[in-house]
Amino acid sequence: LQAAVRGEEYIGVIGAGISDDAVSALAFEVGRLLAENGATIVCGGMTGVMEAACRGAKSSGGRTIGILPGSDRADANDHVDVAIPTGMGEMRNALIARTADAFIAVGGEFGTLSEIALARKLGKPVIGLRSWDLPLAAGGEETLIVAATPAEAVELVLARSAQTRPRV
Amino acid sequence: LQAAVRGEEYIGVIGAGISDDAVSALAFEVGRLLAENGATIVCGGMTGVMEAACRGAKSSGGRTIGILPGSDRADANDHVDVAIPTGMGEMRNALIARTADAFIAVGGEFGTLSEIALARKLGKPVIGLRSWDLPLAAGGEETLIVAATPAEAVELVLARSAQTRPRV
Amino acid sequence: LQAAVRGEEYIGVIGAGISDDAVSALAFEVGRLLAENGATIVCGGMTGVMEAACRGAKSSGGRTIGILPGSDRADANDHVDVAIPTGMGEMRNALIARTADAFIAVGGEFGTLSEIALARKLGKPVIGLRSWDLPLAAGGEETLIVAATPAEAVELVLARSAQTRPRV
Amino acid sequence: LQAAVRGEEYIGVIGAGISDDAVSALAFEVGRLLAENGATIVCGGMTGVMEAACRGAKSSGGRTIGILPGSDRADANDHVDVAIPTGMGEMRNALIARTADAFIAVGGEFGTLSEIALARKLGKPVIGLRSWDLPLAAGGEETLIVAATPAEAVELVLARSAQTRPRV
Repeated sequence: LQAAVRGEEYIGVIGAGISDDAVSALAFEVGRLLAENGATIVCGGMTGVMEAACRGAKSSGGRTIGILPGSDRADANDHVDVAIPTGMGEMRNALIARTADAFIAVGGEFGTLSEIALARKLGKPVIGLRSWDLPLAAGGEETLIVAATPAEAVELVLARSAQTRPRV
Repeated sequence: LQAAVRGEEYIGVIGAGISDDAVSALAFEVGRLLAENGATIVCGGMTGVMEAACRGAKSSGGRTIGILPGSDRADANDHVDVAIPTGMGEMRNALIARTADAFIAVGGEFGTLSEIALARKLGKPVIGLRSWDLPLAAGGEETLIVAATPAEAVELVLARSAQTRPRV
Repeated sequence: LQAAVRGEEYIGVIGAGISDDAVSALAFEVGRLLAENGATIVCGGMTGVMEAACRGAKSSGGRTIGILPGSDRADANDHVDVAIPTGMGEMRNALIARTADAFIAVGGEFGTLSEIALARKLGKPVIGLRSWDLPLAAGGEETLIVAATPAEAVELVLARSAQTRPRV
Repeated sequence: LQAAVRGEEYIGVIGAGISDDAVSALAFEVGRLLAENGATIVCGGMTGVMEAACRGAKSSGGRTIGILPGSDRADANDHVDVAIPTGMGEMRNALIARTADAFIAVGGEFGTLSEIALARKLGKPVIGLRSWDLPLAAGGEETLIVAATPAEAVELVLARSAQTRPRV
């Protein structure tokens, strides 16, 4: 079986680079639960929600990928296992959208909104936790599925990523 | 004076690749009025809203730039003057966000939502015409400024692009 | 007929951002002759060879496109008509390779070498003028076609771009 | 210490997607020796030299990153641990150049030449093993350091990556 897809979901955790304690605690718990369920975390590799989710994932032995806006691998937060320094700025959000199978948005500002939209454009599901309150798309498609807790977000995302992750 | 910035706004017109007659008519009028006011149109270069806006701009002698998702320049619609075939798919939305000084969104689905968000992340204003109904950002910033008509959209966007376009 | 491809070659002129008088004079003449022959110049939009080629093209009424490494349109040299600020750094060389139909390399260092290689990877011809002295590819394909003068370079590139430019 | 940089070199192994037995054997041995020395392999994630290097690395328990040209994670070869599906085609070579600290080119055609040039543009060293025979740059800088064997290539690359890898 292929190492890169063997029994593994790649779940994107997206959110702002600055987050208050409450949002960081949610992101930590999301990361921890995803790792407990065997998922690899894909994120922007920086501070705030990204760091909290990586820290959570590493606290239960998970694996974390950081796709960085800058050109220096050392910019990654301390809990990123594999860092990809893109030098593309916010354009790297499209790489995160392509790399993960499904997403959890925790809080978030405009960067997170772009990530939600790029993921949905690719037909990948996004679960929101205290994130943007978004209407349906003009075509009637759901934009964001709202979860109330990290546990619910993780349950919802894993149920959906089973449909969108690569088959081997 | 620099040719690329001499007295010229670059206004992004964003919207879906499939549009009904009503939305296409709005996009045509937006393109026409922008060109009348001396603005260069920046868009994704394809069909639907993009094509209608380019057609409108050319109808009053304007200039149009199409930043294409595919790798072939010939994919551009017939009213694109300068085509940039990126081969980057939807990732090219980030190039459109960087290239234009301000934006008008006409209708639109997830790709348009990503474009709105990427533009706002860069601090560039976006005017919406029958587009997404979006809340304020968590930080309180306006996401989309709603216009009722093409004329109002063009007036609003040009008032704002005067602040965000490059100085020389 | 499509505006973006109507009877127009897009010719890439590539070379270093710092160039001595002799190399700049060659680049100016290349730009001038390309414009006289109706070709649009595609380049990196910055200083050195890029600026000299754009200046040459504008001296005979040509059209110039600058695909910039940075995020600010005002970084373009004064002779760029249409500037695309990519924010991608050297990665934008791949966009130049996709946009032009054929290339002339004037002088050049590592950035130029990457541009030559990316163009050749896409099957597009590159003419060299005092540029890299490169062996054939392992598969036996020509890497760079050497010209002795700007006039010869322009003649060679236009003969070849007639094969690789988009049909309509 | 930061997980992404802790005592680890990221070494790029670059080469063509089709390789004969002799070149594949060299790439396998390069991958094996790099992994034995604790380096993470960064490559294009596809067939040929990329696959052989990943197979070699996994044969001695190493870690492999594949930065893919396409949009589907399942395109990675069977020996890639972490796959980044970029959807950027050959443009992704610039991401490989940014991600690794130093490079070994094994054989190779135009794609490999672009990778060598992009790495050198960033000031990162490239060791060649039966690869392109390249002159010095115009400025007098070495383009490619030639090695005769996989062991020599690995020794040379690790001596140099110690200078270019991120500090923490």
